[in-house]
Amino acid sequence: MTLEDKDMTSQVLADVNAMGKAARGAAAVLSVADTGQKNLALLAMADAIDAAASILLAANAKDLAAARVKGIDAALLDRLELTPARISGMSEGLRSVAAQADPIGALSATDRRPSGLEIARMRVPLGVIGVIYESRPNVTADAAGLCIKSGNVVILRGGSEAFNSNQAVAECVRQGLQKAGLPEAAVQLVATTDRAAVGALLAMDEYLDVIIPRGGKGLVKRISEEARVPVIKHLDGICHVFIDAGADLARAVEVALNAKTYRYGICGSMETLLLHGDEAERVLPMLVDAFAAKEVELRGCERTLALVPGMVAATEADWDTEYLGPILSIRVVDDMDAAMQHIARHGSAHTDAIVTNDIGRARRFVRQVDSASVMVNAATCFADGAEYGLGAEIGISTNRMHVRGPVGVLGLTTEKYVVNGDYTTRG
Amino acid sequence: MTLEDKDMTSQVLADVNAMGKAARGAAAVLSVADTGQKNLALLAMADAIDAAASILLAANAKDLAAARVKGIDAALLDRLELTPARISGMSEGLRSVAAQADPIGALSATDRRPSGLEIARMRVPLGVIGVIYESRPNVTADAAGLCIKSGNVVILRGGSEAFNSNQAVAECVRQGLQKAGLPEAAVQLVATTDRAAVGALLAMDEYLDVIIPRGGKGLVKRISEEARVPVIKHLDGICHVFIDAGADLARAVEVALNAKTYRYGICGSMETLLLHGDEAERVLPMLVDAFAAKEVELRGCERTLALVPGMVAATEADWDTEYLGPILSIRVVDDMDAAMQHIARHGSAHTDAIVTNDIGRARRFVRQVDSASVMVNAATCFADGAEYGLGAEIGISTNRMHVRGPVGVLGLTTEKYVVNGDYTTRG
Repeated sequence: MTLEDKDMTSQVLADVNAMGKAARGAAAVLSVADTGQKNLALLAMADAIDAAASILLAANAKDLAAARVKGIDAALLDRLELTPARISGMSEGLRSVAAQADPIGALSATDRRPSGLEIARMRVPLGVIGVIYESRPNVTADAAGLCIKSGNVVILRGGSEAFNSNQAVAECVRQGLQKAGLPEAAVQLVATTDRAAVGALLAMDEYLDVIIPRGGKGLVKRISEEARVPVIKHLDGICHVFIDAGADLARAVEVALNAKTYRYGICGSMETLLLHGDEAERVLPMLVDAFAAKEVELRGCERTLALVPGMVAATEADWDTEYLGPILSIRVVDDMDAAMQHIARHGSAHTDAIVTNDIGRARRFVRQVDSASVMVNAATCFADGAEYGLGAEIGISTNRMHVRGPVGVLGLTTEKYVVNGDYTTRG
Repeated sequence: MTLEDKDMTSQVLADVNAMGKAARGAAAVLSVADTGQKNLALLAMADAIDAAASILLAANAKDLAAARVKGIDAALLDRLELTPARISGMSEGLRSVAAQADPIGALSATDRRPSGLEIARMRVPLGVIGVIYESRPNVTADAAGLCIKSGNVVILRGGSEAFNSNQAVAECVRQGLQKAGLPEAAVQLVATTDRAAVGALLAMDEYLDVIIPRGGKGLVKRISEEARVPVIKHLDGICHVFIDAGADLARAVEVALNAKTYRYGICGSMETLLLHGDEAERVLPMLVDAFAAKEVELRGCERTLALVPGMVAATEADWDTEYLGPILSIRVVDDMDAAMQHIARHGSAHTDAIVTNDIGRARRFVRQVDSASVMVNAATCFADGAEYGLGAEIGISTNRMHVRGPVGVLGLTTEKYVVNGDYTTRG
């Protein structure tokens, strides 16, 4: 590292630190901001984004051109691209979050204690949230909207490949805050592509209350390992569908097909299909036809191969793989308990589903399967904040503590105790 | 380190790892155990403790004798000591937790989405909890009771000075689990005083879901820094009482006196008293008399010293000090806003109180003060799980995420999504 590099790095650290300090100041204002004022900001952000559509497209075109020069792959280019529909998606997302209930300040039921004290819990913001993300510029608007609505302040650090797009979206966010009379430091975008900025955020436990990484496994892993601030993280999504004995097989095949093929790249996509042994012989030919039509490669266990000779054999590694692509592993199991054992051993506690007509087994599956989302007769690809009614999501948590599954406004809050007495002393 | 030491250390690592694996296995059983079975275990533990009182006292006598030989200080000896009253306290605590509602399996209100899906959240245990504590043997019973009631499994690592006492309590816990037919691995006590065991627990993110340290600042700090597992931690308790203009001064002095002197060593003890400028002249003589009678040293700000000449002057460091002893700093402020600014700057977000007759200011104080417990007309020393109706507490959290303040059964749980459909696919 040259002296000049060192100077630049220490400048980045100073800048990020100054942002942290400003954020902490703004947090006191946001934590008690009225619902109306917060909603006004969100709606003004949405209007500003709609009005700036051509500016956003132009900024995005710069990023796309630079990415193409760098030879960035098609999947990443797709995530990076803004289209008129995606721009409307951002503003609609903000309006949808504005329409959500404001949880801040809500009091739980009050308990009166023998001491005479009245004790309740009040919902409050987490404080200052850091969001570190990769190529998708819409995260800038989504994260800003969810954080402001929940009374939090946010520092955003987007991917360098989306630098111009993120700056343009952040300008619309700034206009919204200004219009509502909220401090501009409530949403700050780190204005450098220097990677030292990420390290600075991870170490800034004085000013940041939580970090949310959004991106690929590499990013999340690095952040989880290095952060001195609590992380709401999203690791693997190895999701299962189990087709139970007695299920409506034609409809069960539809659910399985949807769970796999709705979109291959999402974390709620099914990676392994478990079949009750009693149905395997009847349902496998239906599955083979349905998935062949979608050009999905099937990999089967021994019992599957015995019924469908010629299918690719699944290896042990298949059960632990998140394909995120047109591949599906299939395993025939003796019963629901064997299915649940497979899920406990190979799943990632993200989203797992049973397809069944038996109410007792459905209840037991729901209670026993330890996943952030447990589904009955629904496709795992529904695991998503918008589908769950959260307006938008800032991520899907695979943590156990604080919040599991899609994280919306409520997941960005916590509770404090409120204690009322009558000059009460402890005896 | 000699080769023999290395062998011992690798043996400890292997032992702790085996405990983790056994705990993970037991967690699947505990997570779906019936309320009746869990309560049976707790009540049987309580009975076993009562029945073993003389055994517990004998084991404790060994620990006390060894501690005295080591020249351990009086405060630590006090925490280490078991008395018949403290033994009854343990069994009563277990019965009180048994009497609490069982939150596990409870479903939130169900939302029906446009897709036809019905979405609710189900309360579930965190999984496997590690509790690392110092000298107080009652933590062994409290932690076991709270973890079992909340469907969790726990690995306990008590202080080496309480080794015999903890083993004896753990034996009673084991009897309770056995009587209820629950796996003994649901509560495991690390049976070595080797400090390598703590390091092993901190690194065991495969088997532990959360670590709760109970003890002094040094312990908590070390654990927070080293742990690769999420920590529910308890740092400083720099608690404030603000006496507002117009408060009933005689009663306000009682609250302040109680907040400081109920017990000096607890984290909810008041460390700084803030006085509204309009009342300072009248209330200070009353405070000086009241605290003099309790031999509490007072340290005042300049405005305080102007009214009470001869009082010790507080330095800047005083506002940031958790005395945990018979010392109190006093500051006169202009109004409630100045008091809240002082609390925001110097407080530890643990427990802060206002004493006031003004309903508007009480509401604003409660909303704006960002502490785990915010009190109105009550002494800060009430910040305690039993007083809050939690039955017992496994600690008081100064985290922002997951749980703030006294942590009881509910704080050891989380929620998963439960999604019900009718063979529903995503369009």
